[in-house]
Amino acid sequence: MKVTVFVTPKKNVLDPQGAAVGHAMHHLGFESAHDVRVGKTIAFDVEGEQDTPEFRAKLDKLCDDLLSNPIIEDFRYEVG
Amino acid sequence: MKVTVFVTPKKNVLDPQGAAVGHAMHHLGFESAHDVRVGKTIAFDVEGEQDTPEFRAKLDKLCDDLLSNPIIEDFRYEVG
Repeated sequence: MKVTVFVTPKKNVLDPQGAAVGHAMHHLGFESAHDVRVGKTIAFDVEGEQDTPEFRAKLDKLCDDLLSNPIIEDFRYEVG
Repeated sequence: MKVTVFVTPKKNVLDPQGAAVGHAMHHLGFESAHDVRVGKTIAFDVEGEQDTPEFRAKLDKLCDDLLSNPIIEDFRYEVG
């Protein structure tokens, strides 16, 4: 089973990395872009587990504890 | 128009960040996970452009030149 976790900065949190990428994009002629936000993905395979509510609860905890910083980041995941 | 670019390390490239996250996941009891790969997302809004082949060509160039390192990373994007 494949899991992909998407972690993005929360809407109201400053994203300096996104701002830097936005400046570089403008500099390269991509001037129509704005509100650039940089996030991360964590993709992995899981063996011997089913997509159960228990598994999702474990995954939520993993995302909260390790993969994201819940104060400044949101996460969502795809399981399949 | 919203664009999200997904950048991931190529299959055969070592991903030390992914390996470190994998170790931490095992340590936290998530032992069924393997092949952990960490990638990034760049999301932005684009104004005054249509989703044309020209726009996609510009976007491809941007991904190649700025948002990814084509030697070690793959990219894909969603426009919509």
